[in-house]
Amino acid sequence: MAFYVQKFGGTSVGTVERIAAVADKVKAFRDAGHDSVVVVSAMSGETNRLVSLANAVMEDPTPREMDVLLSTGEQVTIALLCMALNSRGCPAKSYTGSQVRITTDSTHTKARIQSIDEGNIRADIAAGNVVVVAGFQGVDELGNITTLGRGGSDTTAVALAAALKADECQIYTDVDGVYTTDPRVVDSARRLDKITFEEMIEMASLGSKVLQIRSVEFAGKYNVPLRVLSSFQDGPGTLITTEDTSEMEQPLVSGIAFNRDEAKVTIKGVPDIPGVASRILRPVSDANIEVDMIVQNTGDDNQTDFTFTVHRNDYKKAMAILEALQVELGARKVVGDTKIAKVSIVGVGMRSHAGVATKMFERLSKEGINIQMISTSEIKISVVIDEKYLELAVRSLHSAFELSGNSEL
Amino acid sequence: MAFYVQKFGGTSVGTVERIAAVADKVKAFRDAGHDSVVVVSAMSGETNRLVSLANAVMEDPTPREMDVLLSTGEQVTIALLCMALNSRGCPAKSYTGSQVRITTDSTHTKARIQSIDEGNIRADIAAGNVVVVAGFQGVDELGNITTLGRGGSDTTAVALAAALKADECQIYTDVDGVYTTDPRVVDSARRLDKITFEEMIEMASLGSKVLQIRSVEFAGKYNVPLRVLSSFQDGPGTLITTEDTSEMEQPLVSGIAFNRDEAKVTIKGVPDIPGVASRILRPVSDANIEVDMIVQNTGDDNQTDFTFTVHRNDYKKAMAILEALQVELGARKVVGDTKIAKVSIVGVGMRSHAGVATKMFERLSKEGINIQMISTSEIKISVVIDEKYLELAVRSLHSAFELSGNSEL
Repeated sequence: MAFYVQKFGGTSVGTVERIAAVADKVKAFRDAGHDSVVVVSAMSGETNRLVSLANAVMEDPTPREMDVLLSTGEQVTIALLCMALNSRGCPAKSYTGSQVRITTDSTHTKARIQSIDEGNIRADIAAGNVVVVAGFQGVDELGNITTLGRGGSDTTAVALAAALKADECQIYTDVDGVYTTDPRVVDSARRLDKITFEEMIEMASLGSKVLQIRSVEFAGKYNVPLRVLSSFQDGPGTLITTEDTSEMEQPLVSGIAFNRDEAKVTIKGVPDIPGVASRILRPVSDANIEVDMIVQNTGDDNQTDFTFTVHRNDYKKAMAILEALQVELGARKVVGDTKIAKVSIVGVGMRSHAGVATKMFERLSKEGINIQMISTSEIKISVVIDEKYLELAVRSLHSAFELSGNSEL
Repeated sequence: MAFYVQKFGGTSVGTVERIAAVADKVKAFRDAGHDSVVVVSAMSGETNRLVSLANAVMEDPTPREMDVLLSTGEQVTIALLCMALNSRGCPAKSYTGSQVRITTDSTHTKARIQSIDEGNIRADIAAGNVVVVAGFQGVDELGNITTLGRGGSDTTAVALAAALKADECQIYTDVDGVYTTDPRVVDSARRLDKITFEEMIEMASLGSKVLQIRSVEFAGKYNVPLRVLSSFQDGPGTLITTEDTSEMEQPLVSGIAFNRDEAKVTIKGVPDIPGVASRILRPVSDANIEVDMIVQNTGDDNQTDFTFTVHRNDYKKAMAILEALQVELGARKVVGDTKIAKVSIVGVGMRSHAGVATKMFERLSKEGINIQMISTSEIKISVVIDEKYLELAVRSLHSAFELSGNSEL
C-alpha cells in the first residue's frame, strides 16, 4: 500500500470530461488499496478569464483582491472533482488552501509557504476519503487568501507530500515524462526513467517546461521523490530523485536543453580595471532587465570586452543602456545579436569527467558550428551559437552523448 | 453620519460596467461622510454556469461540494468590487463568509446563520475602509463552507446589519421599491414609502419577488430597518420597518398581491368525522406536494367537502392521489380546476377594521366576480377566483381601497 500526492494541472482538468477521467484514475488507484491526496489547478482558461475580468475593472489590480479572485479557479475544480469521485462511489472531501491551513507569508500573488497543518487531512484519509486540495493557494496568518504565483500548484503538491511524508509526489501533465531533449527537435529523444533534482533544475530553467523550478528545488530540499507522468496515457513517467550513488556507472550527460529566447550584447574595449563589471550591470538591473549568461575574458592593453545575454524582449533596452555607457566609459564599441541560441548539456555524471566539455566542443567543431560564448557549472555546460545551427547542434550532441541509446564512438 | 449595510444583487453586479457603477455609488456614499458594509451576490448568470458544471459531473451533486463550488460566485464579485473601489481611490477590503466568520449550521445548500463575528469588520471600518462581504455564504463550526440557499445574500445583509447595529439595511435591486400591486396589471400602482415587516412578508409570499421572505422575517425579528431601492435610478425606495403606532390613521390596506400559479382540487362527500383531514393530506405531503389554501366547510348529512390549492405543476399528481382516496374513503367525487387565481389584500390596518372583508367581497360582487374560496389571516384576506377575472379583480380592489391615491367612496 502506497501513499501518493497526485497533482493534475489545468489541461488535465480542463473540461468536465477530463475531470471525469481524472476521477477514474484516482478511483482506480484507491481501489488498488492505495491512499492519495489529489492537488488540482484551475480548469485551463479559467485563470485567464478571471485575469481579464480584473483588468477590465482596474488597470493594476490590487494584489490582495487578485488573490481572492484567482483562488476561486482551483476552488471550482476541487468541488467538481469531489463530485465526480462521489458519483463513482468514492468518498472524497475538498479543501481550499485556507481550509487545510497552508500558511504562507503575506506577499500576495507570489506568497511562499511557511507551514502546513496536515492534521485534518490525515484524519480524513484515515477515515477512508480521497482528499482533494486546491493548488496554488494559501492563507496568511491574518486569514487573508494568498496565491503562490505561476506553477504554484506543483509547489502545493510537493509541500503537501513533504508534510504528509508521502511515498511519492506525482505530477500529471500533458507529457509522459522528462526527455533527453525536445522530441520535436530530435526524433530519437528518449524519456528518462530517472533524473536527479539538480539535473531537473538545470533542465527546467533552460526551457523544458514540464515542472516549475521552484517545486523541484522544494522537492530536493525535503527529499520528496517526484514523478512526472501523463494524464492522458499510462506509463512510468520520469522519477526525479536524489543521486543514486549505488549505481556504478552514471551516464555522463542526462539531457540537452536549449532556448532561443535570448539575445547577446557586447561592449568592447572597456577599461580593464576593478569595478567595471558592476558599472555596466547596475543600470541594466535598475531597468529590471534579467541577465542570464555573463562572459568577460582576459583583456589586452588594459582593455577588455564584456558580453551578456538578455531576453530578446529586452534587447533594445539593453543596447540603449550600453550605448549610453560607451560614452561614459570611453569604450570602443557596442554590438549585439538577436539571432543566437543557447544549448546546454546537463548531467551529474560530468562532475568527475573532465572530458565532457572537450567532447562537446569537438563535436560542434566537427559540424562547423562556431561557439560564441561558453559558460559552465558543476553539472552543466552551456554554449551560445548562431541560431540557425540550433537543431543541428542539439541533434549531433544528442547523438554524441549516446542519449538515444544508440552508441556511437 | 450614517452607517448602512448595502446589498447589491446579481443583476446590479452582472457586468464589469455595472460593478463600476456600484463602486461609484458606494464611493459617493462614503465621500458624503457615511460608513458602509457592502454585500454582493454572484454576477448574474454565474450561479447557473456553476450549477451546469456540477450537473455535468454528477446527477445529484454532493451538497458539501456544491457549496464549495457555488460560493466562488460571490467571491469573484467581492474581489472585483474592491478593485473597482480601489481604482477610484477608495480603500476597500473583501471578506468571504468564512473570513468574516459568519457561522452557520451544517445544513449544506440551505444553512442557517448562527452567529457573526463582526470584530474584524468593525476594525476595518474604523480604519476607513469600505468592507465588501460575499453574500449567501458562511462556514460551519468545523470550517466547512456553507451556503444559505435562494435569496441568501439578502439574509447575509440583514444579519450583518443586525450584528453591526447598522442604521439601515439597504437592498438594491432592479425595481425602485415595493408597489401597492404589480404595475404591469394596474397602471396607477403606487410605490409605498413605507410598509411593515408583516405586510412585506404577506406580499413577498404572494409573489412580489422583491425580497426574500426569510430576510424580511430576520429583519423583523432583530428590528433592522430595511429599505428596497433601485440600483439603476435614484429614489427613496420603500422602507420596511415596524408598525409606527404614532401614526393616527393607518391605511386599511397597503397592497394587493396575487398569483396564478395555483390549481384547486376538491374531494366531495367525505365522511364528516375526526381524522379525515389528515387522512386526505398525509399522502399529499408524502408526495412532497406543497399545499397553500385549505378550506373545509361545515358539512351536511355527516358529509363534507374538502378543498385545497397546490402549485399547478403538482395538479395531476394531487388529482391522482385524491382519486385513489375517493375509493378508500367512499367519497362522492373528486373535482379540480387549474384556471384559478388567488388575490389577496394585505394591510396591518385591517386588524381593527372588520369592514375590510365586506368591502372586498362587495366590490368583487359588483364586478360580477364569483368567489370560490376564502381564507384569512390577521392582516390578509385571500380569495380564489376564476383566472379570467384576475386583472379586473386586482384593478377594482386597488381602486376600492384607494391605493393609487385617488379616493373613491
